[in-house]
Formats: sequence, structure tokens, C-alpha cells
Amino acid sequence: MIEIERKFLVKSKTFLDDYTRCNRIVQGYLSSSPERTVRVRIKGENGYLTIKGKSNESGLSRYEWEKEIPITEAEQLLQLCEKGVIDKTRYEVIVGTHVYEVDVFTGENDGLILAEVELNSEEESFEKPEWLGEEVTKDNRYYNSYLSKNPFKTW
Amino acid sequence: MIEIERKFLVKSKTFLDDYTRCNRIVQGYLSSSPERTVRVRIKGENGYLTIKGKSNESGLSRYEWEKEIPITEAEQLLQLCEKGVIDKTRYEVIVGTHVYEVDVFTGENDGLILAEVELNSEEESFEKPEWLGEEVTKDNRYYNSYLSKNPFKTW
Repeated sequence: MIEIERKFLVKSKTFLDDYTRCNRIVQGYLSSSPERTVRVRIKGENGYLTIKGKSNESGLSRYEWEKEIPITEAEQLLQLCEKGVIDKTRYEVIVGTHVYEVDVFTGENDGLILAEVELNSEEESFEKPEWLGEEVTKDNRYYNSYLSKNPFKTW
Repeated sequence: MIEIERKFLVKSKTFLDDYTRCNRIVQGYLSSSPERTVRVRIKGENGYLTIKGKSNESGLSRYEWEKEIPITEAEQLLQLCEKGVIDKTRYEVIVGTHVYEVDVFTGENDGLILAEVELNSEEESFEKPEWLGEEVTKDNRYYNSYLSKNPFKTW
């Protein structure tokens, strides 16, 4: 229930040559407070409710609780969410022994591409593909909850 | 998924002669916004996550979504909640064909007793016991989410 992730900008679209799966993701926030975000997500044909605490000091670890819910319920809950729904396509790219999730944003966040890799410990090493750009793990502006209120196009 | 409830103050403790069950309830809020409250509750030995929308114009109907969750997860989520946990004992009292839920608050809301009855339609009639006081259905100060931030003792 503790999520360890590192997040990067993406500097080229060559990851599109190597992805294995992709899904449309539409998500909104019932709470976008970084101390207790409550997220409603539709990913492909599934619904999810996800609650996250604030990051630890290194910015790498964050408490996370998630339940799969019926898509019809997720659609109803999306209606309750704060303004600023996030719409993106997530590509899964296997690099070495890890899976990078590469999010290509549309709508108000068009132009932004972020890659995340999940680790089992903060010390775990991982291979960096050539399309990977600057690390932004500690930069809260790249939280989707922040982007929902402050879209990338307005930066 | 639409909850129709009427809420009343309670003017005497004679309901204690007639209750069938009671449970300790401890609850906190991940979002206390009336437009999208997200509540974590431990009731007896069970955990719940509940999301409610805002009330309709009459104040009687409110969208509600609820899932039972393991008590250990509810305890973890309570740690993330906003300040102001609600602690109360809920008594169930059968009156005619309805069940009144009577909440006796402790801690910062000590002195407050509220009764709620759930209806199938806004027009449904129901029997009123002698211990029932003033109706407060439309008064948002009696939302538990409001009480968590503005406890009864401070009124």
C-alpha cells in the first residue's frame, strides 16, 4: 500500500515503436488536496477509486489505496468531481525488467508527456531508455491532481 | 443510489427504552466539501467508504455511493483524513414500519443527539415518536461533515 514511483518528462515519441498496450484514461478528483487525493478513474473498460496520502520527504514514496469499481459507478462519481477532468492515453513500455507507463495528455494538458516507473524500493536500479528526459519526481506540478486545476497549456 | 432522509433533533433520551441495536461509529473526511464529501467510517467491526453529492433543492435527496472495506484499511484511511474525527453511538429504534437511527455524539460534539429516518420517496409518511424534536433536514450545520470542522460545543 506504499507506492514507490519515479517520474520523468519524455523527450521523444520513439517509445511508440516499443509499447505493448495502451488505454484511454479519464479521471477526476473528489479531493485534489496533496495530503489526501481522492481520484475517480476510468481506464479502458474498468473503473477505479484511488486514495493517496502525501509524499514522504524524498518525494518517492506515497501511501496508496485503490479499489476497482463498476464503470457505471465511476461515471456517476466523475459527475461529482471537481472541475478539470484529465484525459490521456497510457502506453505501457517494457524496458529491461521494468514497465514504464507513458502518459500522453490531451485537452487542456496537450503537449505534456510523462513517464513513470514503479519500484519495489527507493534504492532499486532501473534501465533508462533513450526517450527518457528530465526527472520530475519531486515536482508537485506534475501531480495529475495539480494538472487538473492548473493545466499544462496555462503554464 | 439516491438517499432520501429526514433529520431531527432529539428532545429526550426515552428512545433508550426501545432501541434494538447500537454501534460505535468513528468517522473522518477525506473531503468535507458539501458538493462531494468522501467519508471513512468504522461502524462496529466494519469499515466503509462513502461518497455523497450535494442535496437537491428540498434538502431531502442526496446521491450516495458506499462500499464496505476491511477495517484495517479504514483505520489507515482515517489517518489521512482532515482534522476533526466524529465519534458517536448509533442506536436503532423501530417506530411503526421505519427504523430511526439515533446518533448520540461524544467528544467535541457532546450534547448533540440527532435522529434520521430513511424514506423510499420524498412523499412517504412515517410515524413520529414522542422523543422526536425539531426537524433540521435542511440545516447543513447538522451534516456530520460540517460538525467535524465546527463541533457542536463551539456553537
